[in-house]
Amino acid sequence: MVKQERAARTRWLLIQAAAEAFVQKGFTRASIAAISRQAGVSNGALHFHFETKDALADAVEQSAAAALRRMLPDGESGDGALQRLVDASHRLMNGLDRDVVVRAGFALSGSPARRRAGLGLRGQWQDWVESVLRDAAADGSLADGVSPADAATVVVAATVGFEVLGTGSRTWIARERLTRFWELVLPRLSRPGVLRELDIRGADPQGDRRGKRLP
Amino acid sequence: MVKQERAARTRWLLIQAAAEAFVQKGFTRASIAAISRQAGVSNGALHFHFETKDALADAVEQSAAAALRRMLPDGESGDGALQRLVDASHRLMNGLDRDVVVRAGFALSGSPARRRAGLGLRGQWQDWVESVLRDAAADGSLADGVSPADAATVVVAATVGFEVLGTGSRTWIARERLTRFWELVLPRLSRPGVLRELDIRGADPQGDRRGKRLP
Repeated sequence: MVKQERAARTRWLLIQAAAEAFVQKGFTRASIAAISRQAGVSNGALHFHFETKDALADAVEQSAAAALRRMLPDGESGDGALQRLVDASHRLMNGLDRDVVVRAGFALSGSPARRRAGLGLRGQWQDWVESVLRDAAADGSLADGVSPADAATVVVAATVGFEVLGTGSRTWIARERLTRFWELVLPRLSRPGVLRELDIRGADPQGDRRGKRLP
Repeated sequence: MVKQERAARTRWLLIQAAAEAFVQKGFTRASIAAISRQAGVSNGALHFHFETKDALADAVEQSAAAALRRMLPDGESGDGALQRLVDASHRLMNGLDRDVVVRAGFALSGSPARRRAGLGLRGQWQDWVESVLRDAAADGSLADGVSPADAATVVVAATVGFEVLGTGSRTWIARERLTRFWELVLPRLSRPGVLRELDIRGADPQGDRRGKRLP
């Protein structure tokens, strides 16, 4: 490997090991020494990349935020706003399940040791949900009498709940659980004509639809 | 004050101060010395009551669990199961808003430093929600095709979400927010005849109904 590649790989290993430690032990109890050991990197190399544990946590949050952005479909996808919301929620749960960096990024945004001016992952997710639900209101797919703000309250609270409860038991972030949530909630949020077209299981990673409709 | 009263008062002050510290700084960063200072109690007196910080956190959790139990109406109240659920959810948000011990108890149940065999506050809340929704299914107040387990998924995830988001911004645990949640969700969970009778703003602390019906 050339030098730059090696540096990028070391950085990646450190971020993975730090994310694992933050999830297992929490930010405050995670030790820099254990993180460098876990990453198979010397303490010196760690400090070359990250001056402090806070800098390491910043990098985990940034990496998780980048992963989150990749999960959020934009209007170009050709899908309606509510379908984009359903798809993004499934991708988020899948990301929380598979990627320790995403899990750690969300957990850090709730840590008292890390509360800061910025939005954090939960705040970024909330912002996106609110904006896609405003799109849904604008294109007429929200049910009569449902405001985007109220719909966002339900969706943000429940998905943050799944995320938090998922750290204790993975069944909370399983696809079936989220699908049942949408099955219950979407008929209240969506105009009937839109509802019948929605795929509530979300697209798979290749973008192919699973094609589960509401009964 | 007689000696016993003084001891009970000291214990109470320590639990309050510890709860405040756990919420502000997190369990790991909260310092025993700062807690005894905040409580206006000597370090020696603290150690007389609580041998370790874990023992102090246990006491906070037990105190929060007792407060939670007092919020949960039983069948004796004469209200139906769904009304009991709505009332309990409002009491919980109100408790989180007003009582730092309740806030700390819930936060501790999600702390990696404190994950243990027991249920924790979130688990106890989940258990109760599941049981009251089984009661609702048994007395025929759940809507057709809605299982108690699916209803519990929505309610537990959303209320835990409110609790967690409420640590960042109190608007998440405001009565209006929860009322809007029930307004959206109850029409899917409840049989129409039951729905019309539900007071979605919950009873006030004196047990008097606020009497807001669904539109």
